[in-house]
Amino acid sequence: MTSMLAFLVAARRCEIHDLEQLARSCELVQAVSELVHQLQGERGASNLFLASGGARFGAQRAARVAASHATEAAVRAWLARPEVCGAAPAQAMPGGARLFTRIALALHALDGLAGLREEVATMRCGAEEATQRFNRVIAALLSLVFEAADVAADPAVSRLLVALFNLMQGKEFAGQERAAGAAAFAAGTTGRAGEQALLHLIEAQEACFERFEAFCPPDTLAAWGTAQRAMPLAELERLRRKLIAAGQGVVLAPALAEDWFACCSARLDQMHSIESALAGGLRATCIERIGALQLDPDDPQSLLQTVAGLPEAAAPIGVFSAEQAADAASGGEEGGDAAVTTEPLGPRLTRSIVDALHAQSRRLQAMSDELAAVRAALDERKLIERAKGVLMRHQALAEDEAYRLLRQTAMNQGRRLVEVAQAVLAMAELLPRRS
Amino acid sequence: MTSMLAFLVAARRCEIHDLEQLARSCELVQAVSELVHQLQGERGASNLFLASGGARFGAQRAARVAASHATEAAVRAWLARPEVCGAAPAQAMPGGARLFTRIALALHALDGLAGLREEVATMRCGAEEATQRFNRVIAALLSLVFEAADVAADPAVSRLLVALFNLMQGKEFAGQERAAGAAAFAAGTTGRAGEQALLHLIEAQEACFERFEAFCPPDTLAAWGTAQRAMPLAELERLRRKLIAAGQGVVLAPALAEDWFACCSARLDQMHSIESALAGGLRATCIERIGALQLDPDDPQSLLQTVAGLPEAAAPIGVFSAEQAADAASGGEEGGDAAVTTEPLGPRLTRSIVDALHAQSRRLQAMSDELAAVRAALDERKLIERAKGVLMRHQALAEDEAYRLLRQTAMNQGRRLVEVAQAVLAMAELLPRRS
Repeated sequence: MTSMLAFLVAARRCEIHDLEQLARSCELVQAVSELVHQLQGERGASNLFLASGGARFGAQRAARVAASHATEAAVRAWLARPEVCGAAPAQAMPGGARLFTRIALALHALDGLAGLREEVATMRCGAEEATQRFNRVIAALLSLVFEAADVAADPAVSRLLVALFNLMQGKEFAGQERAAGAAAFAAGTTGRAGEQALLHLIEAQEACFERFEAFCPPDTLAAWGTAQRAMPLAELERLRRKLIAAGQGVVLAPALAEDWFACCSARLDQMHSIESALAGGLRATCIERIGALQLDPDDPQSLLQTVAGLPEAAAPIGVFSAEQAADAASGGEEGGDAAVTTEPLGPRLTRSIVDALHAQSRRLQAMSDELAAVRAALDERKLIERAKGVLMRHQALAEDEAYRLLRQTAMNQGRRLVEVAQAVLAMAELLPRRS
Repeated sequence: MTSMLAFLVAARRCEIHDLEQLARSCELVQAVSELVHQLQGERGASNLFLASGGARFGAQRAARVAASHATEAAVRAWLARPEVCGAAPAQAMPGGARLFTRIALALHALDGLAGLREEVATMRCGAEEATQRFNRVIAALLSLVFEAADVAADPAVSRLLVALFNLMQGKEFAGQERAAGAAAFAAGTTGRAGEQALLHLIEAQEACFERFEAFCPPDTLAAWGTAQRAMPLAELERLRRKLIAAGQGVVLAPALAEDWFACCSARLDQMHSIESALAGGLRATCIERIGALQLDPDDPQSLLQTVAGLPEAAAPIGVFSAEQAADAASGGEEGGDAAVTTEPLGPRLTRSIVDALHAQSRRLQAMSDELAAVRAALDERKLIERAKGVLMRHQALAEDEAYRLLRQTAMNQGRRLVEVAQAVLAMAELLPRRS
């Protein structure tokens, strides 16, 4: 009987331990979201700096580099904490292997920034190539947020992470649209391929924001509405129209490049305010969830509070009121076997513990069901990632080449990216594996 | 760069830690499978003892009780180990909260056995009621095995656990068929309801054994074929036919009760031999998986072996052969950004680490996909459990009453149990929640 209590308490401790680990991961996600925003700004400034042959945006770029450095230092400081990656068992978090692998890959991408910056500063790198390389670093950081959303063991936190990931991914597509549009205005033409790429980026943004809205908490959704009204959307659509028309041969006025950049940047800044609010709320949600576990209204909570701190043999008898015992007895959760057990702690306490266990079991199953539903929202990206992996192995492509091939195929065939990914995966089963 | 290594190693440590915890859970599952077998024997002997008015099977029952006691002591000894349920972080295992909750509920069921045995010994309990109470204890133990299968983080081990659970559940239906048939022979009649119950138990067994076979490793499957040939199946089917015919009014010869019992018991013993082999193989599989992680052929393994034991700052440079570096460089996993990174450890080592990370990331995603597929095999039971919970709350039924209502509805409507469960869950969303 005392061991029954001990396992009830141990189950709670496991849950709380998982949430404490999750709270730590959420801190990392918050720092990463800040870093991604700064890198997007640095990418834009670097792009304009290189496109102007180094004549302009030098100071802005330097300021952006400094801001990126500061946020990168915050991410690295978090990662260097001894409790994050030590040999202690505290590192054993749910999904730890996947998250740590993504962290290591993100670190590798960050390690490449110093070299990239040097090439940009000395003009040894084209605007297009610099953009691609910044894209890869940001993609590695987004993958980390994706993985955090996928391994989170609490549905409430997982929902927030899925919302945040989709907002960040949508914002990244918006950032890529800013770069592509700026390059088109500067060149005076979009071209047929550029038009397709722009349309794809716009469509991809919208899909992300739809998923973001589906998982967003109500207060953030309201703030998102306000932020959207503050965005220069009419100006954006007017300039988008010009870019698309340029795909059909209309010539663009290069002077509009800066209007375009400013308009897109204002929009990105509004998105960032929502992103920050969402990321900032993650840790609070973890702490709230931990609090709810310690005071679960579904449970005879006083039981847990009473027993948690007591030595096993000295658990008290009859600490419940008559009402609680009557409530527990009428719960009807189990057959009439309680009456026949030999109970050192008395039948009323036993009944309360059993009720607590059944309530806990139901709650854990409901959480597990909800978690599966939340994670299903991430399946589309997983399919695309797997298809990319197949193309990388079978066609010996680099990661971004594989992605571009998928995207190009989707554009050419007028299909959704995920449909092409499914076709690639179906095909892969028929192909021999390169070893 | 050194922190990239540290996270690669930390990810491996997480995986190995999870498998070590899983190996411990598998020990528990093995002990539980032994206990279930003994309790099934004790249930049968108690049944015959009570049905004979205490005139017969007294000695057999006493022997069975002693055997149950011994196996129960083994389960309790495992649970009492300090590393299982202490306050230390080692208890933080994936799905720990769910497994511990099930353990506590199983302990509660076991606590009821002493009272039940006393009532059986003093004939204060009917055969039917004793059977129901043993069924509940065994159901609680099976739920524990189910949960272990559902929270296992390794697909290979999870497959074995799913196979074992289905074999155990099928065997339990066979045990219930033995009890129901013995009671029918003793009474001289099956009755319309008894006929339906028998048909349901036979069908349920077959469904379980199908799932068992789908997840069973080849060597166990071969042993299962041998075990089936050693079962007295012709005799079983002949006696089953008599029982079914008795549902239509044919009178049964009570003398056949012992033939029936012996025949069913021989079959259960054969099942148990397979069950023991499967349960015994669990821990070996965990240890094998741990070994495979430490020597993964997909990885530049020597890297891990070399770096795991070294202090971070002293990671060696250039420990790889030219072939390994060439292999790594031709892997084509990433774009050409490695060349631009500033690398204290040299580009060849970086490339090897990045390859190891990509291989690890792909492997973890493939495992996660496979795990989801294996767990899908458990969804049917989860639906039934959830429907049971709905009926318990809405109709204020005990757990076994809710199950019988589901089963009866399925029989009456000629539908599968899971279809009725789905209908109940769909209906539940329309009903107000009793609070």
